[in-house]
Amino acid sequence: MQILQVELGERSYPIYIGADLLAQPQLLAQHIAGRQVAIVTNETVAPLYLQALETALSGYSLTSVVLPDGEEFKTWEVLQQIFDGLLTARHDRRTTIIALGGGVVGDMAGFAAACYQRGVNFVQIPTTLLSQVDSSVGGKTGINHPLGKNMVGAFYQPQAVLIDTKSLMTLPQRELSAGLAEVIKYGLICDEPFLQWLEANMPALRELDQAALTQAIERSCAAKARIVAADERESGVRATLNLGHTFGHAIETHMGYGVWLHGEAVAAGTVMALEMSTRLGWIEPAERDRAIRLFQAAGLPVVPPKVMTPAHFLEHMAVDKKVLDGQLRLVLLRQMGDAVVTSEYPREILSATLNADYAAMAEQLKN
Amino acid sequence: MQILQVELGERSYPIYIGADLLAQPQLLAQHIAGRQVAIVTNETVAPLYLQALETALSGYSLTSVVLPDGEEFKTWEVLQQIFDGLLTARHDRRTTIIALGGGVVGDMAGFAAACYQRGVNFVQIPTTLLSQVDSSVGGKTGINHPLGKNMVGAFYQPQAVLIDTKSLMTLPQRELSAGLAEVIKYGLICDEPFLQWLEANMPALRELDQAALTQAIERSCAAKARIVAADERESGVRATLNLGHTFGHAIETHMGYGVWLHGEAVAAGTVMALEMSTRLGWIEPAERDRAIRLFQAAGLPVVPPKVMTPAHFLEHMAVDKKVLDGQLRLVLLRQMGDAVVTSEYPREILSATLNADYAAMAEQLKN
Repeated sequence: MQILQVELGERSYPIYIGADLLAQPQLLAQHIAGRQVAIVTNETVAPLYLQALETALSGYSLTSVVLPDGEEFKTWEVLQQIFDGLLTARHDRRTTIIALGGGVVGDMAGFAAACYQRGVNFVQIPTTLLSQVDSSVGGKTGINHPLGKNMVGAFYQPQAVLIDTKSLMTLPQRELSAGLAEVIKYGLICDEPFLQWLEANMPALRELDQAALTQAIERSCAAKARIVAADERESGVRATLNLGHTFGHAIETHMGYGVWLHGEAVAAGTVMALEMSTRLGWIEPAERDRAIRLFQAAGLPVVPPKVMTPAHFLEHMAVDKKVLDGQLRLVLLRQMGDAVVTSEYPREILSATLNADYAAMAEQLKN
Repeated sequence: MQILQVELGERSYPIYIGADLLAQPQLLAQHIAGRQVAIVTNETVAPLYLQALETALSGYSLTSVVLPDGEEFKTWEVLQQIFDGLLTARHDRRTTIIALGGGVVGDMAGFAAACYQRGVNFVQIPTTLLSQVDSSVGGKTGINHPLGKNMVGAFYQPQAVLIDTKSLMTLPQRELSAGLAEVIKYGLICDEPFLQWLEANMPALRELDQAALTQAIERSCAAKARIVAADERESGVRATLNLGHTFGHAIETHMGYGVWLHGEAVAAGTVMALEMSTRLGWIEPAERDRAIRLFQAAGLPVVPPKVMTPAHFLEHMAVDKKVLDGQLRLVLLRQMGDAVVTSEYPREILSATLNADYAAMAEQLKN
């Protein structure tokens, strides 16, 4: 087991990473303050892991809330199910909410923990690779609004995160790939040597080698933890974590939540950000192509949806949270392993990026 | 003008108190960071003050959201109107939300500010005495849930609070009295000399003497600011601010939101807490009676609703946020000007308190 400490002053917390951690209830017990625990999970994860977790926590007064599965349920109406469950079972402000599931469950359970009686304890048990390397670190919680993703939420840190790499055995191949998109992202924005490691270990990761997974997750979480510790409220460097996300969110919004997985949209969006970095002369075409090959090796799309025009992208990007006082800020690469957030670029370069022929690039690089 | 600084480290903020402050836009301008401002108010306050505030802020990109008036509208559905207004007008994360109105507007606008894009700037302009002395200090925001008051919310501090005592000229007499309940509370829990001042100045306050109002508001806010600075997250002394609120919430819940004003329920609830303190031998009957007379002079009820039985009270108090791990904690007076939070009392004393004849006490003390 690896233990990674996220340093945030009085809000610091540990991340435990390893195989079969769900079978170690004492790891959880030290982070539960009161006698009440509420487990929030979804219909897909519940049949796999809920009973084991309930058994591990049988000493507590326990309430389980099972939500429908999917980004389209990341709404206030579904969030109410958590509050209803807590209030019906009379959970008080010393209760602990445990998120058991992927990013949507974590975001909703975390936001519920942030809001229930103005804040209760929170523990995360992420069961997808994406949530393990991304949403379990950094304290972002929230729900979607009909007019935009994650528009309502809170920064709220958990007491602990427990990552059982064995839970990836039940994850669909497509979702494993989606998680790898964020893993690759850490190499691109701040850890070039990790890119080399990923190029060497991508087959082992896709075959669920537990040691390789533990290492990739630990290195990804460590990268994110470093960045979040430096900038908890996303006023500066933390925004670099959004590499590919401005283009990616446009894809998700346009296609409808859930049609493209978040990681898939980020992969294609990152290729667009690298294309733009190339056109600005900041990275070489060969470096962009290296990233495209790595995404391809991870089983990810590298071409935006054919149905989307440059106008579609611009329309969706205008409501992005990264638009500050009307200026569109983008995360781009100065070089491999070094991302910057900038609104200083010629409009024509953005326009050329939106018009580039990604299908041709992808075809040329395909093995 | 009085300026009171609420000391909360990096979340410190000033409270400006005085007559005609709404006519001084430069006070607001120094607390607005971006170019966008959203004013949240309600149907009662908008015709009185919205235009003046919009004129004062005409240099900004301005959106106004007018909510229905009343505690019964402190719901998620109505909160959505704020998010809808912000997103439709494309407010970004540098926007500033200004609450113009009473406690409900402040709670909802503050919660919206806490959640919109995971937190934006917030300024309060409370227009009722209750919100000026209570909800504008301390950062409590939130909405009601069908199963309980203020069950969903956040601790979120404003950038500044601007209290224009002239706004009390348009406040109904009954709401002025309700605000005085909280003013008296500060004397009871932590400032015995203030009780004497209130006994001498109650007529001036009810006649809206601006100097007396400024002094009472400043002293109340200072008391609350001291307590909140010592205990921002309500883990200890802050709970003493809830003197009379456990009994009072039971009254509000039982009678239905809005039938009794919050301050009215707090007044009757405080009399119950003082009765209990008397029965515990902590304060003298004469001290309890002194408080009852002061509430009466403020035009407040001192007798719980006739329709409520002791069983009703116990039922409603069992879901109170102050119930920790099943024990009912109450705020009581050790002596006048000295409140404690305790669950150490004989059950019979609580029972006797719920059965006491408050109507007879009130009748005897009536002028």
